[in-house]
Amino acid sequence: MAKLGFAMCVKSSIPPHRTPSSCLNSDSCAAITRRKTLIFTTSFLATYLHWHQNPNPNLSTSPPAIAQEFDDDLDKEETRVVQIFQETSSSVVYIKDLELAEIPKSSSGNNIGEAEDDNAKVEGTGSGFIWDKFGHIVTNYHVVSKLAKDTSGLQRCKVYLVDSGGKSITRDGKIVGFDPDYDLAVLKVDAVGNELKPVRISTSGELQVGQSCFAIGNPYGYENTLTTGVISGLGREIPSPNGRAIRGAIQTDAAINAGNSGGPLINSYGHVIGVNTATFTRRGSGMSSGVNFAIPIDTALRVVPTLIVYGTPYADRY
Amino acid sequence: MAKLGFAMCVKSSIPPHRTPSSCLNSDSCAAITRRKTLIFTTSFLATYLHWHQNPNPNLSTSPPAIAQEFDDDLDKEETRVVQIFQETSSSVVYIKDLELAEIPKSSSGNNIGEAEDDNAKVEGTGSGFIWDKFGHIVTNYHVVSKLAKDTSGLQRCKVYLVDSGGKSITRDGKIVGFDPDYDLAVLKVDAVGNELKPVRISTSGELQVGQSCFAIGNPYGYENTLTTGVISGLGREIPSPNGRAIRGAIQTDAAINAGNSGGPLINSYGHVIGVNTATFTRRGSGMSSGVNFAIPIDTALRVVPTLIVYGTPYADRY
Amino acid sequence: MAKLGFAMCVKSSIPPHRTPSSCLNSDSCAAITRRKTLIFTTSFLATYLHWHQNPNPNLSTSPPAIAQEFDDDLDKEETRVVQIFQETSSSVVYIKDLELAEIPKSSSGNNIGEAEDDNAKVEGTGSGFIWDKFGHIVTNYHVVSKLAKDTSGLQRCKVYLVDSGGKSITRDGKIVGFDPDYDLAVLKVDAVGNELKPVRISTSGELQVGQSCFAIGNPYGYENTLTTGVISGLGREIPSPNGRAIRGAIQTDAAINAGNSGGPLINSYGHVIGVNTATFTRRGSGMSSGVNFAIPIDTALRVVPTLIVYGTPYADRY
Repeated sequence: MAKLGFAMCVKSSIPPHRTPSSCLNSDSCAAITRRKTLIFTTSFLATYLHWHQNPNPNLSTSPPAIAQEFDDDLDKEETRVVQIFQETSSSVVYIKDLELAEIPKSSSGNNIGEAEDDNAKVEGTGSGFIWDKFGHIVTNYHVVSKLAKDTSGLQRCKVYLVDSGGKSITRDGKIVGFDPDYDLAVLKVDAVGNELKPVRISTSGELQVGQSCFAIGNPYGYENTLTTGVISGLGREIPSPNGRAIRGAIQTDAAINAGNSGGPLINSYGHVIGVNTATFTRRGSGMSSGVNFAIPIDTALRVVPTLIVYGTPYADRY
Repeated sequence: MAKLGFAMCVKSSIPPHRTPSSCLNSDSCAAITRRKTLIFTTSFLATYLHWHQNPNPNLSTSPPAIAQEFDDDLDKEETRVVQIFQETSSSVVYIKDLELAEIPKSSSGNNIGEAEDDNAKVEGTGSGFIWDKFGHIVTNYHVVSKLAKDTSGLQRCKVYLVDSGGKSITRDGKIVGFDPDYDLAVLKVDAVGNELKPVRISTSGELQVGQSCFAIGNPYGYENTLTTGVISGLGREIPSPNGRAIRGAIQTDAAINAGNSGGPLINSYGHVIGVNTATFTRRGSGMSSGVNFAIPIDTALRVVPTLIVYGTPYADRY
Repeated sequence: MAKLGFAMCVKSSIPPHRTPSSCLNSDSCAAITRRKTLIFTTSFLATYLHWHQNPNPNLSTSPPAIAQEFDDDLDKEETRVVQIFQETSSSVVYIKDLELAEIPKSSSGNNIGEAEDDNAKVEGTGSGFIWDKFGHIVTNYHVVSKLAKDTSGLQRCKVYLVDSGGKSITRDGKIVGFDPDYDLAVLKVDAVGNELKPVRISTSGELQVGQSCFAIGNPYGYENTLTTGVISGLGREIPSPNGRAIRGAIQTDAAINAGNSGGPLINSYGHVIGVNTATFTRRGSGMSSGVNFAIPIDTALRVVPTLIVYGTPYADRY
């Protein structure tokens, strides 16, 4: 048994593969179970037309059957999971840690300027979720620890989110407060009101081992990834970034990989029950083993408001 | 392709994180779907109250919205999985292998004395399940092989179980018999009758690829962990500890990690269909790959009674 | 974070453990939910009989209770998954790459001769699926790239499939065409008409994140393995074997390990929605991380007919 250990899902250091996610705008996805239209692409038909005119003599003399296609509606259970994702994914953000090559001469307001962006090195990536309409984002402390501890002024946090109109926007995230004891941190982005869709919060106090749960996040930079499983255990103890124990953690077999950190664990109502934080894995891989952990939302409900109101010793950053 | 091989889920060598599991007592969990009560912790309310009196001037002037919380009942399917866990988990035991520093001077009966415990080194951990009301525990041979082969008298097996009243108890496990050909072993603990809740046994002869299955065990020492999946394949061949082939093994994508060995694989009725034994993984990691194996319960039904009645060449240990 | 990268599920280099799969013949599995008959094996009864006559004096005086067994019918949801597997698995093939020690003196027609087989070295294994009744097999290009690029004449592809009568047959696979840009290839085997059961094709254009999906393939050589999950993401970008990007890839948390490459990803109707191709994993392990990828079937529907009709620059191999 070698080199297995408790690995925090630290920010994925893999260059992110960012692609447009298909269904971030719930408006455009109203018809979840609409039927497919049987239209073949032109090139596909052309191939067969051409084949009929000039068949390859090496092939058998009848044409290959055109692959049969089917209208496949989703059943009730699938539709429910699809809806959970569609209603929640726009509340989940993608966090990229940057280190600038040099301190920018002029502050570019809340957005990171293009020039500033070009010279920045991606230090890691993580996930987070929109807490309220004031632009507060909850994530793990270990996702933003470099920014939290920065004394050089070179650290930045870029937050990629989707506004209520379904448009992708990028904002600079400022540290509001953090608590290494519980591996939680709060960022604030300059986007308010109707632009933002906060998550809906459940409670973790009445969770039952065996109930379904869903993780949304950005493993290895793949944005808005949904993984599914059940609650595997409750009342677990996991190490916090400062070496103390976080009690009451939720264990799940929903895949949680590097980059999922800070994203929400949700129940079958789409309500947040935990903050995905760690996986028990081979050291350095950040690869899900099926033994994964989230900080219970009840802990976040206790810690986050305090962080928002009082900030931290580093409150001057805000 | 490097260093992938057939890894028996040998006893997890990670120091166990033992925490009270929330629902081992089925009595206290009768109300599976009871509704949550909307009571905020005092500290949470206090934060907001204080905020109203003394708002942080850096924040926007209206208070952050109190996170909306929801009453989330479980649906029928989730309730079923929760019940499977609650009805089965108290039949699953946690096995810790110990090596004493020296042979204890006086035998302390069936329980390991505290002093003896303090000087013991944890050699690994595994799982098992209660076979009958006579205190027989079924597990993998490879979980207890050190005790089975012990000639020094220094090996011990500590069995952590839950009695019918929901109380955690610890007992010394004695080897009754073992069969390396099938990677099966039987321990006996000094706890009988109403104290113990034996598993309920199904048959593995009529399993179908695709049906749901559930593993309960102690991966990396996390007690009473539930993981879920389907039967991925049947009639597989896996190597036994003595190098022979165990035929008819059940393959599943339910996560099975180091420490799950010896625990039950159960069907959607909560009845045992196999003994979780191995995963196909990177050598030395014991990490679930999604290609995991259990010995069929029909094999255990053939082997275990013989072991109970006749024991083995090492029967003098009993 | 070390040595994580984009790993194509290249052919598993592990010696395959081939075992008869229990239910490849859908005829013999008509009764999915038939009830078990309570017949104990003779040896089991004998054990208990013997025990009654000659009880082990070390045991308590009453016999161990005969393990209670249950009749466990499958519920509706489980029955559906079982049926998906039974209706699809005979359309999935197992591909073994061989390198001959020397060029055989006489061509043995379409089947690989035993002598030829004995001297062959297994280079890797993968999966594929039956495209049509003319014997065309679709797989990943990277599964058969050695054969595709072979100039020595020593490379072979053995295709293991099940005919419509449920009988396992082995055929030599000839390259019809391949397209490294999309990591797709078409083989042809000499088995036609009623012998073959082509897959049924759906469309990938209307997939929704959250819907159920199923992978069938041969991870580490374990034939006809079923793994389950949901669509985790859409529109992903994954690298093709020639370094270009394959767009529109489907992400899933259904376990996909080395050896699954080229097998079908299917929806809850048993219809193919993608070609399992890659997993994001520790380099060299080919181990599923829960972040797995398939080429969308719409891409295959565009590429495969062209490959069948026109072949490739290596068309002379056909």
